[in-house]
Amino acid sequence: MISPFFEINKTSTGKARAGTITTDHGTIQTPIFMPVGTVASVKTVHQRELKDDIKAQIILGNTYHLNLRPKMDIMQAAGGLHKFMNWDLPILTDSGGYQVFSLSKSRKLNEAGVKFKSHIDGSTHFISPEISMEIQRQIGADIFMAFDECVAYPAEYNQVKKSMDLTHRWLKRCIKWNAENPELYGHKQAFFPIVQGSCYSDLRKKSAEFISEQNAVGNAIGGLSVGEPEEEMYRITDEVTDILPKDKPRYLMGVGTPWNIIETIGLGIDMMDCVMPTRNARNAMLFTWQGVMNMKNKKWESDFSPLDEFGTSYVDTEYSKAYVRHLFVAKEYLAKQIASIHNLAFYLDLVKVAREHIVAGDFYEWKDSIIPVLRQRL
Amino acid sequence: MISPFFEINKTSTGKARAGTITTDHGTIQTPIFMPVGTVASVKTVHQRELKDDIKAQIILGNTYHLNLRPKMDIMQAAGGLHKFMNWDLPILTDSGGYQVFSLSKSRKLNEAGVKFKSHIDGSTHFISPEISMEIQRQIGADIFMAFDECVAYPAEYNQVKKSMDLTHRWLKRCIKWNAENPELYGHKQAFFPIVQGSCYSDLRKKSAEFISEQNAVGNAIGGLSVGEPEEEMYRITDEVTDILPKDKPRYLMGVGTPWNIIETIGLGIDMMDCVMPTRNARNAMLFTWQGVMNMKNKKWESDFSPLDEFGTSYVDTEYSKAYVRHLFVAKEYLAKQIASIHNLAFYLDLVKVAREHIVAGDFYEWKDSIIPVLRQRL
Repeated sequence: MISPFFEINKTSTGKARAGTITTDHGTIQTPIFMPVGTVASVKTVHQRELKDDIKAQIILGNTYHLNLRPKMDIMQAAGGLHKFMNWDLPILTDSGGYQVFSLSKSRKLNEAGVKFKSHIDGSTHFISPEISMEIQRQIGADIFMAFDECVAYPAEYNQVKKSMDLTHRWLKRCIKWNAENPELYGHKQAFFPIVQGSCYSDLRKKSAEFISEQNAVGNAIGGLSVGEPEEEMYRITDEVTDILPKDKPRYLMGVGTPWNIIETIGLGIDMMDCVMPTRNARNAMLFTWQGVMNMKNKKWESDFSPLDEFGTSYVDTEYSKAYVRHLFVAKEYLAKQIASIHNLAFYLDLVKVAREHIVAGDFYEWKDSIIPVLRQRL
Repeated sequence: MISPFFEINKTSTGKARAGTITTDHGTIQTPIFMPVGTVASVKTVHQRELKDDIKAQIILGNTYHLNLRPKMDIMQAAGGLHKFMNWDLPILTDSGGYQVFSLSKSRKLNEAGVKFKSHIDGSTHFISPEISMEIQRQIGADIFMAFDECVAYPAEYNQVKKSMDLTHRWLKRCIKWNAENPELYGHKQAFFPIVQGSCYSDLRKKSAEFISEQNAVGNAIGGLSVGEPEEEMYRITDEVTDILPKDKPRYLMGVGTPWNIIETIGLGIDMMDCVMPTRNARNAMLFTWQGVMNMKNKKWESDFSPLDEFGTSYVDTEYSKAYVRHLFVAKEYLAKQIASIHNLAFYLDLVKVAREHIVAGDFYEWKDSIIPVLRQRL
């Protein structure tokens, strides 16, 4: 019997659900957080640590970055990203749309696609829905994304509407290209379209309906966590998950803090990714079950207790708070490495425990009790 | 029966020998290379990796750096460096002498000691033989070093003689202080004096004789690998090891390349340390059994073979040359991490194989055949 792409294992009293995604590189228990490996590496973390210590079930690669380095001739010669970076569990790639709009030095958009200058060397590149699909075939991720335009926040209604309509037309071109161009490496690639519409409810509704009609195996919500208030993000997520099909996984792109993750799981989200656990780790910010720690703080200077007594990764007991504080003050590389492993392991533990509470039937009580704790500053 | 500090297990046709050093934190098979953990961290490497993947038997800490950060109140509160950094195998500390002369922004030396400005914040510090000993008691390394003056290369004969005489007077003060001030943490600390004298044979002879007379459990050779030609380093090492007692381990400080290590083992050296394997790793230079690789080189761009098929650490088979080259080009942290593990594991393998050849009786033939290979550029 062939497993379906997505199975719901347990629903809750609200919209939260526990599920299983099945790919040719293994299964993923949802809700799931996906560590970001922008340029074929989750920064400061070995692949072995991702698997054994962090317990990552799926990681993210960035099409924009991988297309610039190592470039697609190398990627194809390697046999795709799994082999290139030696990661045999599932991978998801974004489409490059978000990065073109947020990173490139200058860009010129029209119906055909986007001409942009690389943030690395200023060289000119062109990306279209078809080119994004082609690159993502060459990367060979298990899940890949539609090429969309992501507008900044705030944006005028008419601009958002125009952009959303373009994203929908681009989606049709992505679907057509994918139908005509099969996978390259012998494993299946699942395609997710992306809902846009900024914080305008009627546009989000229209986009969610259009996306749902495409009958993809999974759907994503883009254009959030781009500067809007948290409450707006929750409101739009709630409205969109009311429309997106219940039997397909829902991926909220680029989110977020531990409390964002728990809240949006409660709104029916199954998958998330964010650079926050790794980026903030490199800046000495640790997320824990008891709140947020700034490891440069003098209060840890002679605290020789374990880094995080409730942590699940080996760094949490191997190293003390005082030692990690010292490493940050002395600007040692190991500080960033320890903090990144800790934060990612915490994020994976967070969604694992969320799933357990969904299965146990007390997710919402747990969520409301834990969020104030997660938010506090230690 | 209590094991002696040093036992010679096998002598060779020449001066090379295989031995065992016994400390309260475990034994060390010599000849041995000691990775440098300047500020309580071997840069980019987890303690677990040092032990399991690199097979380090002893690591080095730097008194100068540790005294500035985390400072000695923290070090003592932690119970010493082993506990602070969670490393339960042997540690050696240098005395801070070399760093005061090479790193501090300005310094003023007299008979009492050295006043210097920190390279970090310019704050003024004073270090004397007694203070260096006190700091090294607080760090609690298994082996600790005399406080010496290390002259630059080249230096005038009279300056070197004056400096050597001062180093000898300082040594007497170190020995007196140690006799009056026992260990702090319940484990033994072995004290090594240091031979100086730059590249002047008569001064080196005088210094080696003076050092030998102190009857310490081990002896060190300082003031080499500071810019002199390789042949001078070998000549002086050879002259000094002719004088230093045969039944005590000999530590050549700050050396060196893989071929320096093999050559000086052949001259009767038992212990070495150097930042080269880690520093060069961070600059993309890998040492291997087949020669030296610059991982930024375009020739590795689509070489998907293992990083080093003759390497002993997991990174050598886990990652390809093309992948590591990509990580260096993309300036990813993981590049430095992989290269550091590789180089240190190679250095440890190098001394292990050297020991095997000493035991097998063919060390010198092996040395002469392998050095040209180690030196070549791949």
